[in-house]
Amino acid sequence: MNHNDTLIGKPLPKVDGLAKCFGTTKFADDLFLPRMVYGKILRAIHPHARILRVDTGKALARPGVLAAITRSDLSIKYGIMPTSQDETALAVDKVRHVGEAVAAVAALDEETAEAALEDIEVDYEVLPPIMSIEEALTAQVRIHEESKWGNAQKEVALEFGDPTAGFAQADYVREDSFFYEGSTHLPMEQHAVVADFSPDGKLTIWSSTQTPHYVHRALAKVLEIPMSHVRVIAPPVGGGFGGKSDPFPHEFCAAKLAMLTGRPVKITLTREEVFYCHRGRHPVKMWVKTGFRKDGAITAMHFRSFLDGGAYSSYGLASTYYTGALQTTTYQIPHYKFEGVRLFTNKPPCGPKRGHGTPQPRYALEVQLDKAAEALGLDPIEMRLGMLTPANSETINGLKVTTSGLRECIEKVRDRSGWSEKFHQLPPGRGIGFALSCYITGAGLPIYWNDMPHSSVQLKLDRSGGVAVFCGAIDIGQGSDSVLATVVAEELGIDPADIRLVTADTDLTPVDLGSYSSRVTLMMGNAAIEAAQKVRSLLFTVAAERLGCPEQDLSARGRKIFSRTDPERALSFAEAVQLAETHFGMLGAVGSYKPPKLAAPYKGSGVGPSPAYSFSACIAEVECDPTTGLVNPVKIWIAHDCGRAINPLLALGQVEGSVYMALGEVFMEEQVFRRGLHKIPSLLEYKSPTTLEVPEIETILVESLDSRGPYGAKEAGQGPLLPVPPAIANAVYDALGVRIDEIPITPDKVLKALVLKERGDSLRVSVPQFAFPAPIRWQPGEKEKRP
Amino acid sequence: MNHNDTLIGKPLPKVDGLAKCFGTTKFADDLFLPRMVYGKILRAIHPHARILRVDTGKALARPGVLAAITRSDLSIKYGIMPTSQDETALAVDKVRHVGEAVAAVAALDEETAEAALEDIEVDYEVLPPIMSIEEALTAQVRIHEESKWGNAQKEVALEFGDPTAGFAQADYVREDSFFYEGSTHLPMEQHAVVADFSPDGKLTIWSSTQTPHYVHRALAKVLEIPMSHVRVIAPPVGGGFGGKSDPFPHEFCAAKLAMLTGRPVKITLTREEVFYCHRGRHPVKMWVKTGFRKDGAITAMHFRSFLDGGAYSSYGLASTYYTGALQTTTYQIPHYKFEGVRLFTNKPPCGPKRGHGTPQPRYALEVQLDKAAEALGLDPIEMRLGMLTPANSETINGLKVTTSGLRECIEKVRDRSGWSEKFHQLPPGRGIGFALSCYITGAGLPIYWNDMPHSSVQLKLDRSGGVAVFCGAIDIGQGSDSVLATVVAEELGIDPADIRLVTADTDLTPVDLGSYSSRVTLMMGNAAIEAAQKVRSLLFTVAAERLGCPEQDLSARGRKIFSRTDPERALSFAEAVQLAETHFGMLGAVGSYKPPKLAAPYKGSGVGPSPAYSFSACIAEVECDPTTGLVNPVKIWIAHDCGRAINPLLALGQVEGSVYMALGEVFMEEQVFRRGLHKIPSLLEYKSPTTLEVPEIETILVESLDSRGPYGAKEAGQGPLLPVPPAIANAVYDALGVRIDEIPITPDKVLKALVLKERGDSLRVSVPQFAFPAPIRWQPGEKEKRP
Repeated sequence: MNHNDTLIGKPLPKVDGLAKCFGTTKFADDLFLPRMVYGKILRAIHPHARILRVDTGKALARPGVLAAITRSDLSIKYGIMPTSQDETALAVDKVRHVGEAVAAVAALDEETAEAALEDIEVDYEVLPPIMSIEEALTAQVRIHEESKWGNAQKEVALEFGDPTAGFAQADYVREDSFFYEGSTHLPMEQHAVVADFSPDGKLTIWSSTQTPHYVHRALAKVLEIPMSHVRVIAPPVGGGFGGKSDPFPHEFCAAKLAMLTGRPVKITLTREEVFYCHRGRHPVKMWVKTGFRKDGAITAMHFRSFLDGGAYSSYGLASTYYTGALQTTTYQIPHYKFEGVRLFTNKPPCGPKRGHGTPQPRYALEVQLDKAAEALGLDPIEMRLGMLTPANSETINGLKVTTSGLRECIEKVRDRSGWSEKFHQLPPGRGIGFALSCYITGAGLPIYWNDMPHSSVQLKLDRSGGVAVFCGAIDIGQGSDSVLATVVAEELGIDPADIRLVTADTDLTPVDLGSYSSRVTLMMGNAAIEAAQKVRSLLFTVAAERLGCPEQDLSARGRKIFSRTDPERALSFAEAVQLAETHFGMLGAVGSYKPPKLAAPYKGSGVGPSPAYSFSACIAEVECDPTTGLVNPVKIWIAHDCGRAINPLLALGQVEGSVYMALGEVFMEEQVFRRGLHKIPSLLEYKSPTTLEVPEIETILVESLDSRGPYGAKEAGQGPLLPVPPAIANAVYDALGVRIDEIPITPDKVLKALVLKERGDSLRVSVPQFAFPAPIRWQPGEKEKRP
Repeated sequence: MNHNDTLIGKPLPKVDGLAKCFGTTKFADDLFLPRMVYGKILRAIHPHARILRVDTGKALARPGVLAAITRSDLSIKYGIMPTSQDETALAVDKVRHVGEAVAAVAALDEETAEAALEDIEVDYEVLPPIMSIEEALTAQVRIHEESKWGNAQKEVALEFGDPTAGFAQADYVREDSFFYEGSTHLPMEQHAVVADFSPDGKLTIWSSTQTPHYVHRALAKVLEIPMSHVRVIAPPVGGGFGGKSDPFPHEFCAAKLAMLTGRPVKITLTREEVFYCHRGRHPVKMWVKTGFRKDGAITAMHFRSFLDGGAYSSYGLASTYYTGALQTTTYQIPHYKFEGVRLFTNKPPCGPKRGHGTPQPRYALEVQLDKAAEALGLDPIEMRLGMLTPANSETINGLKVTTSGLRECIEKVRDRSGWSEKFHQLPPGRGIGFALSCYITGAGLPIYWNDMPHSSVQLKLDRSGGVAVFCGAIDIGQGSDSVLATVVAEELGIDPADIRLVTADTDLTPVDLGSYSSRVTLMMGNAAIEAAQKVRSLLFTVAAERLGCPEQDLSARGRKIFSRTDPERALSFAEAVQLAETHFGMLGAVGSYKPPKLAAPYKGSGVGPSPAYSFSACIAEVECDPTTGLVNPVKIWIAHDCGRAINPLLALGQVEGSVYMALGEVFMEEQVFRRGLHKIPSLLEYKSPTTLEVPEIETILVESLDSRGPYGAKEAGQGPLLPVPPAIANAVYDALGVRIDEIPITPDKVLKALVLKERGDSLRVSVPQFAFPAPIRWQPGEKEKRP
């Protein structure tokens, strides 16, 4: 036994790995309850239409159909943000996008349910659809008649410092426009739900959700059942990436159908439905004006975002703020202005997808910097190294950066990639590009009751040395179960195999707000440490007495509690539990985590503040064929400051998964619509990279040991996506000399850009004109400021 | 809102009532796991035989058979008491009773498994069987060759005071012999188990058991798996009555077969197998010598028990002590001697059945007192009233009686039944009889690790006002789930419907030693109160501040926390939880109960001490037909001191259920064997009373409010069985003038007694001669005494 032995930093297998390999993991669609029936949802066929009549009479008459529901059954509004309660589970007055849920049926089998959908008669009055940002800004017709801001969800304008003065100090000012197309999450598991309503009036649903507690809250509201009588259980989720973070119509429909039929109801979405229920990446148009000194330092920045939000709000308000928040955490920007607006369009609503609102502005910023470096005659890496936001600093918009391993990340990828021998020096058609990024480790504010714990853990110790760990966190494949087991095992000196996890069950587990915002490892980890240290302290008390040594001399490792100075003085963990149980009674404990109050005192400051920020740097080498326009990545070097890799296997997996997803976005994926219909709603046509399309990835983990993270850990699951698209775009420029200021970078755009280049022109992104309101102005150190 | 409102004493419906009514309760046999296969057990056909060969080759060759196991697979000994580890899951060297498990198979369906049993070849060397107490005492052959006490499990002899002197002071001494036949529990649910062994080496079993933690311990031992990797879950049990308190061979077999096949395995016993796997009422022969003063007061008693234990020890050592322990808690006995021995016979092992070891001596004692009263010319009730053990006293054998409502019980049944107008005054063939009794409320010592909590409860409070309650206790129909929900709801001022119970799961719930010894309400209840009061105190802290009133002024009722003096000052329970959670972090708590150290300091004193004793009095009126010998009960009056009826519906149900079971034992039921084979192993032939055979029962609950019980509660589920059989026997004597000193009282015995009576003779029970060892002698107040 060595008290320095630790599980932290060890490449342990995932605790759920064997079950996944053996196929015994039960996802939501794998659940079957006795007497279970099947639900199906009728979806809108028009992008924008008033509903005149919905008649389910014929459907109900079909043998095997048990129930049908329409707008009158589920008309209470809900939404994820307290201020964005604009959805209903079934469309009430009108439909606002193709695929919106209009009615639902429950039948003895899926075929009958499917057939019954055809029996439902819906009369529509078709309305003119709004299919783009520009149309939303100019059209007379309103998607939400009651909206205060027309077809905009909200108009945001913030100003920090004195941008006018900043621009006046610049040696060089440039303006650029960018477009980042929308994409969807593409989880391997389709959304599925099983609902059961018991004779005593209690509702239980098993749903593939990243946010069981938000689903819980919304179900109680819409179904008008006391929250304490609703239980939401999230079985292991087969991929989420943000796409399972909202309450969804199928969850309400299954619940309502279960209540009406008295039988369990399962609804599993088809893949086509998943494309229409997406809450994915917003298409964003951006305009950026930045002032630079000759040495590359930024004197001021003005950033404008136009988000194509789709038909409903979802997390869109947060998405909008996010497009303007994190520019400052990587680069020192002394004066900064942000304007953003999210427009309603007649498309499925967008929401959080890996990186939530930040890959788009990061793309714009990093490509613009590449352009500026060239214009100023600077090496793009050296230029950036000169203006990094330092550790332990506060940005102009009030974000508190604790640790930063960004410089090390940059230097690592620069040195490993051979940047200095390659940049501008590769053979024609080959290029290398650089970009960096930053991401949050959880949000500073909950979107639930104010000031509540964001994550809690409850423990129960067993005489046999087993430990039950209860936590609301949900493993969506990222490995939160493994992290939870590892942290508790580390603190108690036992093996993760001795731990029984109960997670993501609103009845049995204390709250964890969900698997989003890269918050779980930091928040759940801190809560787990607190709970485990409470019981460990009880064990040490009795062990110290039994072993005759001071508590401070004790260590818990290898299922033993022993003296550090005389390791032969030892008790087994189980013996210590038995002793302590005899002395104190049953051993259980709770731990909670609430982030420190981080938001600056200005309205709209709630999005951006995070207990800690992760940093990434990426270099991409590409090979371009000027005759076909095809761009192939040759190799990706990516370094990520994750604070501390609790399990490097998991952290590497997260970083590499992010690179895969980024390559899909930069080269292939498009969530695009024609007359309201998704152009490619199938896995056959919606292209996403497989191992065949992905080049070698060299991943470097940088550990900056943030004091706010458990063992120093920060984010790893989203941030590494961000620098990849701009690094690729910059590499394409290095290879071909053309700028593709929009994502995805497809062969047709490359070819077009090459043609334009020959004409002395370039691809240009148009960004609308819009009169934003007067900004809220705030300076660090200022007290609360309202417009 | 009224702070005097309470749930305690309210006839609330059972929390699991609706699920039972709607048929949605899932008992163990209702569970189906994917890929599950079925196990069957080959059982011995000889009562006593050496096993020469077991060959499963042919069975394994049968299509659909996946595995077969024999003695080499499960040869590690286990047993319920630490000193009684004498069973193996599959017989190793020899079989000791018909029905003993010899081999087991797993197959794709039950029919194939059943057929495969026929394929197994077993060669036996038949040994002479021992089928009675007398044979066990005299036979040369030994059932357990290694036993220290021959065919006896252990010989017990205890002496308190100076019995010789006591008898010398008597005006009247009488000796009587009695026999109480064995019977079985007859739960409606047959024993069933599902076992699952996961690829990561963890075993989970769902078993219809009253003692998941003992099964947990035994599985780990026999299968040689770390305890922390074994999980035992007890689904709701469909009746136990003590018959599901042992680890059983089918549990080990299912587990081993699951480990070998890698597939879940279900074994459900047939009804015939249940008769052979019984651990029911011991047949007991008793000899009682008692000295009386003229006023009926007892001067000394000498009590001898011979228990027919069957083939293995089980709880038998405790059963033996119990036959001698509780004589003193009802009557003041100044000098007392007890000798008991449990004999091994080649029958299925006996164990605990409702009343565990005490209905037999109670029968003997109460009938003898009836005889003595007649001899002394005293009214049997008045005679007993003169010598009751008082409240707050210590008996000669060191048992501490706290409260006693026995006098009130006696007076209630006497007055309600019209005893004084009926006794000796009913028309011929009709009679009335009286008896009383006492029972424990849990045992003073655990049969697990020493000095551990006997029951623990863990709570988790939810922002929505829901409370999750974790406790190892298992509801076997007695209503422990309802009691647990009620107690927590009472302490927190919420509704039992707001509570989510998780019970009887060795991984998720803190320990509760099991549903036996009438321990659950008292021990679990006290643990639940402790846990609930801990969180309530946190709620009151924040509520007091918010409401601006002192904590002592607060009350929690009706889902509100409010000022007693100004009830308009109120917070909802959920609001209080949200406030407290913000202030303290997640709200969870644990509570534990360990009985006070009650055992007197003499060896063998561990059985009998209880935190509190329940008392019952019964009057039975019967109608006897002297031509057929048929005795029909006309009415039963029963009063039971349960301390406090937390839910009177449940308490009444327990008392009346006890009367039903007693009537079965006194009139009908017999677990008897012919050449090792059960004579009537089927529900068609094994008679048990239905509502048609049971007369009106008038039940009176007496509440003595014991300070050791939660809200004063004591036992209700077992004790009321005890006085019924002797009350019936005494009534038969009043009706016909014949004494039936053995149970059951069947028409043939009545007719025979009537014939003997005409000859001036009577039925007589023979009790063997046996040289007990020198007794351990102890007096109250003495320090530890060993022989």
